[in-house]
Amino acid sequence: MSLNPLPLLLTEPLVRAALQEDLGYAGDITTESVVPADAVAHAKLVARTPGTIAGLDLVRTAFRIVDPGLRVSIAAADGNAVEAGTTLATIEGAARGILTGERVALNFLGHLSGIATVTAACVRATKGTRAKICCTRKTTPGLRALQKYAVRAGGGSNHRFGLSDAVLIKDNHIAVAGGITAAIERAKTRAGHMVKIEVEIDRLDQLGEALAAKADIIMLDNMSLADMKSAVERVAGRALIEASGGVTEARVAEIAATGVDLISIGWITHSAPNLDVALDIDAAL
Amino acid sequence: MSLNPLPLLLTEPLVRAALQEDLGYAGDITTESVVPADAVAHAKLVARTPGTIAGLDLVRTAFRIVDPGLRVSIAAADGNAVEAGTTLATIEGAARGILTGERVALNFLGHLSGIATVTAACVRATKGTRAKICCTRKTTPGLRALQKYAVRAGGGSNHRFGLSDAVLIKDNHIAVAGGITAAIERAKTRAGHMVKIEVEIDRLDQLGEALAAKADIIMLDNMSLADMKSAVERVAGRALIEASGGVTEARVAEIAATGVDLISIGWITHSAPNLDVALDIDAAL
Amino acid sequence: MSLNPLPLLLTEPLVRAALQEDLGYAGDITTESVVPADAVAHAKLVARTPGTIAGLDLVRTAFRIVDPGLRVSIAAADGNAVEAGTTLATIEGAARGILTGERVALNFLGHLSGIATVTAACVRATKGTRAKICCTRKTTPGLRALQKYAVRAGGGSNHRFGLSDAVLIKDNHIAVAGGITAAIERAKTRAGHMVKIEVEIDRLDQLGEALAAKADIIMLDNMSLADMKSAVERVAGRALIEASGGVTEARVAEIAATGVDLISIGWITHSAPNLDVALDIDAAL
Amino acid sequence: MSLNPLPLLLTEPLVRAALQEDLGYAGDITTESVVPADAVAHAKLVARTPGTIAGLDLVRTAFRIVDPGLRVSIAAADGNAVEAGTTLATIEGAARGILTGERVALNFLGHLSGIATVTAACVRATKGTRAKICCTRKTTPGLRALQKYAVRAGGGSNHRFGLSDAVLIKDNHIAVAGGITAAIERAKTRAGHMVKIEVEIDRLDQLGEALAAKADIIMLDNMSLADMKSAVERVAGRALIEASGGVTEARVAEIAATGVDLISIGWITHSAPNLDVALDIDAAL
Amino acid sequence: MSLNPLPLLLTEPLVRAALQEDLGYAGDITTESVVPADAVAHAKLVARTPGTIAGLDLVRTAFRIVDPGLRVSIAAADGNAVEAGTTLATIEGAARGILTGERVALNFLGHLSGIATVTAACVRATKGTRAKICCTRKTTPGLRALQKYAVRAGGGSNHRFGLSDAVLIKDNHIAVAGGITAAIERAKTRAGHMVKIEVEIDRLDQLGEALAAKADIIMLDNMSLADMKSAVERVAGRALIEASGGVTEARVAEIAATGVDLISIGWITHSAPNLDVALDIDAAL
Amino acid sequence: MSLNPLPLLLTEPLVRAALQEDLGYAGDITTESVVPADAVAHAKLVARTPGTIAGLDLVRTAFRIVDPGLRVSIAAADGNAVEAGTTLATIEGAARGILTGERVALNFLGHLSGIATVTAACVRATKGTRAKICCTRKTTPGLRALQKYAVRAGGGSNHRFGLSDAVLIKDNHIAVAGGITAAIERAKTRAGHMVKIEVEIDRLDQLGEALAAKADIIMLDNMSLADMKSAVERVAGRALIEASGGVTEARVAEIAATGVDLISIGWITHSAPNLDVALDIDAAL
Repeated sequence: MSLNPLPLLLTEPLVRAALQEDLGYAGDITTESVVPADAVAHAKLVARTPGTIAGLDLVRTAFRIVDPGLRVSIAAADGNAVEAGTTLATIEGAARGILTGERVALNFLGHLSGIATVTAACVRATKGTRAKICCTRKTTPGLRALQKYAVRAGGGSNHRFGLSDAVLIKDNHIAVAGGITAAIERAKTRAGHMVKIEVEIDRLDQLGEALAAKADIIMLDNMSLADMKSAVERVAGRALIEASGGVTEARVAEIAATGVDLISIGWITHSAPNLDVALDIDAAL
Repeated sequence: MSLNPLPLLLTEPLVRAALQEDLGYAGDITTESVVPADAVAHAKLVARTPGTIAGLDLVRTAFRIVDPGLRVSIAAADGNAVEAGTTLATIEGAARGILTGERVALNFLGHLSGIATVTAACVRATKGTRAKICCTRKTTPGLRALQKYAVRAGGGSNHRFGLSDAVLIKDNHIAVAGGITAAIERAKTRAGHMVKIEVEIDRLDQLGEALAAKADIIMLDNMSLADMKSAVERVAGRALIEASGGVTEARVAEIAATGVDLISIGWITHSAPNLDVALDIDAAL
Repeated sequence: MSLNPLPLLLTEPLVRAALQEDLGYAGDITTESVVPADAVAHAKLVARTPGTIAGLDLVRTAFRIVDPGLRVSIAAADGNAVEAGTTLATIEGAARGILTGERVALNFLGHLSGIATVTAACVRATKGTRAKICCTRKTTPGLRALQKYAVRAGGGSNHRFGLSDAVLIKDNHIAVAGGITAAIERAKTRAGHMVKIEVEIDRLDQLGEALAAKADIIMLDNMSLADMKSAVERVAGRALIEASGGVTEARVAEIAATGVDLISIGWITHSAPNLDVALDIDAAL
Repeated sequence: MSLNPLPLLLTEPLVRAALQEDLGYAGDITTESVVPADAVAHAKLVARTPGTIAGLDLVRTAFRIVDPGLRVSIAAADGNAVEAGTTLATIEGAARGILTGERVALNFLGHLSGIATVTAACVRATKGTRAKICCTRKTTPGLRALQKYAVRAGGGSNHRFGLSDAVLIKDNHIAVAGGITAAIERAKTRAGHMVKIEVEIDRLDQLGEALAAKADIIMLDNMSLADMKSAVERVAGRALIEASGGVTEARVAEIAATGVDLISIGWITHSAPNLDVALDIDAAL
Repeated sequence: MSLNPLPLLLTEPLVRAALQEDLGYAGDITTESVVPADAVAHAKLVARTPGTIAGLDLVRTAFRIVDPGLRVSIAAADGNAVEAGTTLATIEGAARGILTGERVALNFLGHLSGIATVTAACVRATKGTRAKICCTRKTTPGLRALQKYAVRAGGGSNHRFGLSDAVLIKDNHIAVAGGITAAIERAKTRAGHMVKIEVEIDRLDQLGEALAAKADIIMLDNMSLADMKSAVERVAGRALIEASGGVTEARVAEIAATGVDLISIGWITHSAPNLDVALDIDAAL
Repeated sequence: MSLNPLPLLLTEPLVRAALQEDLGYAGDITTESVVPADAVAHAKLVARTPGTIAGLDLVRTAFRIVDPGLRVSIAAADGNAVEAGTTLATIEGAARGILTGERVALNFLGHLSGIATVTAACVRATKGTRAKICCTRKTTPGLRALQKYAVRAGGGSNHRFGLSDAVLIKDNHIAVAGGITAAIERAKTRAGHMVKIEVEIDRLDQLGEALAAKADIIMLDNMSLADMKSAVERVAGRALIEASGGVTEARVAEIAATGVDLISIGWITHSAPNLDVALDIDAAL
């Protein structure tokens, strides 16, 4: 299974902004006051609890921007499931740079690894089924590309990126359009031929109309397991089926067992707790 | 207790960036295909679960940017503790604008209210003690100012913003500097007179040196309750005392009971789950 | 047929940048030297040659930024086919603002209307066929969203926006992947379920493999009319068929007559000559 | 004749923006799905039709930003007139980087070479006369500096960059100012001593006033060949004479033959068709 | 004598950046802690010492961005020479907004009025001569457009804005080019026809060559009064003559008396002391 | 005494903006016309008058951005007091790059060294006293971080950076709050525990209240020397004392002799004249 790195073109401005946010206009006044410019250190970036890693490239970028002279050696890979105590990277060089860059590096790594970790748990829970775990647009403002990458690192799959790359017709759209058929038809006519069309239904009796209108994907919103199973049988592969709403880690396996193609979960991006990662600095050399 | 709004100068670029992230280069192709330009709607922004609210100004800004013609009426205030079902705001106007702005508005509100809610829980748990709940630099990259605002909305207090506005001498700084006294002295000489100086200790036997060196604040890192209590007694008001490390919601009350002035908690910013907020749209008018 | 306006969030920064490019650091030194601050004028924006209009919103935005006091009244609509001499908008107010904003307004309008005009010509030439005229990624750097909008204004349809919102497997991808089947399979496994997959073939004998691998769209690259017709027949609606390569205005009708679903044309964006639009200023009032 | 490169300070942000426009938030999903990370390729950038080249530095920059490991070797120079089939550059390295950067590189090169090519045609047509071919402010928004560079690459000359670096008094300015003399006098008094002053006239009987007022340059707007010739004779070197308006490629030689110093042409920037350039990838190594 | 305002397009980003610099990520913590949100005040912006004013538009913009509800009433005009004690503007509205915006508004106004004031002194000292006082490129980084505006407000004139809008050939250019004639000739051939060409000479015996090569302006660098006078006589209006180098306020009159056209002075932009302006707040209402 | 460099993260965007301001959209047209691309030169950056240096890192950055091939060798250090004629740096390489980067490099160096020089004069004048010389928020918009760095280079100390990192309660705040005690109490309750609180008094009879309210720093605004001395005695180390207002270079020694801890001076940042620095280019090699 491939995990492609995000382009630096996209990640570097985010790392740079995070460092500016932390360094302010005067820099790291503690380190500059207390640590001699020529002090050298060796540090290890360690996972304190088990989890799935995402964000090591951002760690490398953060330390490089703070001090291009630091030697960062990555010892794991994004997507790896690691034990508590695993060394993820080592950093050697000027103690000042290591101390100044530490927090931003950890903030990215802990946040993204947290997302990868809960995604991976859902993926494991649904192993052996056809269901893919996927994310939503319920992301933290400004970090969507990173969070969707972390979902991939956890073995999950991405839903549309935003409002402009795919059509997702929800209940309110249907209400205003005057029905599923009308809504899908307008989308087919007006959106380009390169975008997929998904429609959300919340009652089984809407399924026939969604199928007839040839939606590419049908989202079952907050349905019972029995209804999901029934929908899967009736659709029989003519559209992808996505389960959505009220998906807890406890329920994800039984939802997957209904045969749906996709399970989309908002909390893997908006509510994943950070993975506990830390930087241990050896006594300065 | 006052809660001052963040300057628009600071929040508007963040809202604008979040909308650009979601709208991409082609806008909301679903809504534009399916919803007539003249459809009008009335929507309510509702809390689905109880919690403390933060971010209503960002909601207003998001809808204003998407469509300046929308009438947004805020029905609660940041810092309010609300019941499930509480209407937080109403939005009236073109259905398109409401549907297009919905997700970004909710992403900000849910994220910040999540932080305010867990902060408020810790504040309630420590009521009657002198301890203030405060945040750290363990924040989500790019959103520190918003997250620190959400902490204030939850009744918490802010620690330093970043590396340049206060001195915090940690174990590694001490090791490199060759001791607490040396480290604090260098900071006093070199940092400006307008910044406070805090030092972190992890053993009670370091307390005397920290006090003698006249740290403004002494952070007790991962100490036992007994040691915290003992530290409070010995310091006797000559410095502020901050408890840090391993603070769970379950333990926060007993930590506060030791008499510390401050309890700093990383997870109120980096791991707070979103508050469940939603936009209910009445049948289009 | 609906034509939705581009969000101001997206267009305003482009107009602002164009004005900064023209005004430089010292502003319009001619107008400010020569035209009194209180001179008032009435201007008409006129099409000098017949064509299809796109970009009137940008005209309004340009004059608003230069002088919010100007009254801009739009007299046509994007997507309108107009005769030579048609008044597209009138602008009233301070003569200085009108003269200073004129060139940037015309540069946007002439450029986008040029694209809309050649697109509309192709659309007219293929009327009565099922073929949609669509654009490519061969756009002018920085202006893709505007150019794709102009294509829609001309009655055309948009292909994918960029590299991240749909899969398009070209000859080089196939060569490296080791065949059409392998390439499509990898794309199906690795790209999300919300993106469509198109494959380019340049020989008819590749058609079967592309169909079997279930590409959503099959692009016929530089094929003869006979081959296109044959492909349409064999595919029989199981995938969309796109004709591409060597499409001149002269040939577009006969290509459409083969029954293809889409005809993609690079030059409607990268080589469309400007539409001749001008601003006529009445003798200052 | 020298052609100086544009400063990277100016070009790199434009290339970066174009890549961000194309890569979006998820990168090149086709290449990353289909092409192995370790596939290596060798590519040639080739002119498909004869023309004059401009933009090779931007090609180099685009590939460097996408993948600093690519080896780009430029085989021609901006300003060169090349035959169809000429190799302009070779690129070696990771196949992914080459495929991902290809379109942006070609979009810049094709656009700028298109401008250089039509400029060069006009320059050739006027060889042996004193007339320089020059551009106007009728440029594509955001790309003026690049387009003016392409004009220089084609052997043309640049007019003022924008509104703030020279004075150009047009008919409307004259009307409002109350005459040529008044307009030029105001400009001489109010604009700095380092800017040149040009005045546009559309009737021969205005020439005397323009000369008397000591315009540096007199623009003849849409005049007959006979009038141009007559103007050249009467001015006799006391000002530069610029012909403008209705200059087609067919007419440029006869206009130059009148003896004017400058011929300014809007369509060499706003309506030049792209030069057909392509990237040929050898079978992956 | 006209003084045109700088375009808001140019000034607003500078004011916004200055406010962000001052407000940081947490806003004005003093005012927000201490001043009630509903306190209302009336303030006067006053010149403490006599001088020439520049920057009132920036004052208006600063207060508008901080709080759009403030009523700012400008009571003087840029370019006015005022007495100590003159009220320049009044501001009414929320006390918080006034206190928060005060410093940035004053920093702009004091800085630019300082430049206008020293410029005006030089202009007064040279009254009755033909010499214009003009600025150089020795400006404060990032503020050149504002500083050049302030020079105009003080009655001075602007030299070229930067490196790209005019040619100024200095001693080092001459040395490398191999002489004045060669240098000017190259510039005439290669720079566009819309830029003026100035050459710097530091010995009177270079004058003939500069004149023969038809420089538009000849700069006399650090010459004696006698040499300046002699140069003016010899040139006799065939080029503009600019005196430069070592121009103190004491010497400016005698330099002007030599008959030079221009006196350029670096210190009017880089070393002008701030004008003392202050904001007096009446007892809150 | 340590002087830490500003992070490149902060300085590079400022240098880049200054170069863009100077180079405009067309670059250095003089140098490119007149100086051959292969001309090589050796230059020395020299102090023309004695002073204290600040900004050498920005010099290095400016030349690196203009031409990465230039070899810049710094021969002094920020904070050094140098004689007239001292070589501060040498630059070797392409003559074009040296000539193009010269002015921006000098503008930064001259401006910041000017601030360092007047600061150092005040520091020298107060040698042997406990008083530190410190800056204010009266800085040039956009350059505050650089100017505060220059103050440190001159041996001075920094006051708060901006409105958000410390509390400074001035007369107007006190008036609105209803007294010193109320104002300080509100600040203590509402501002975080990591910010210091300073209060300004302008009469000696306010001292007791400020002390009782436990201000960290008490600013004496425009007080007589006798009053300052009296305040120092009464405070007796229980708070820092800052003298402010009307501090001239002539008076700074006698103010320091009163025993105050700090003397804050606006003009060291807003009115320091540039230090005269220049670039001498040896005859091109």
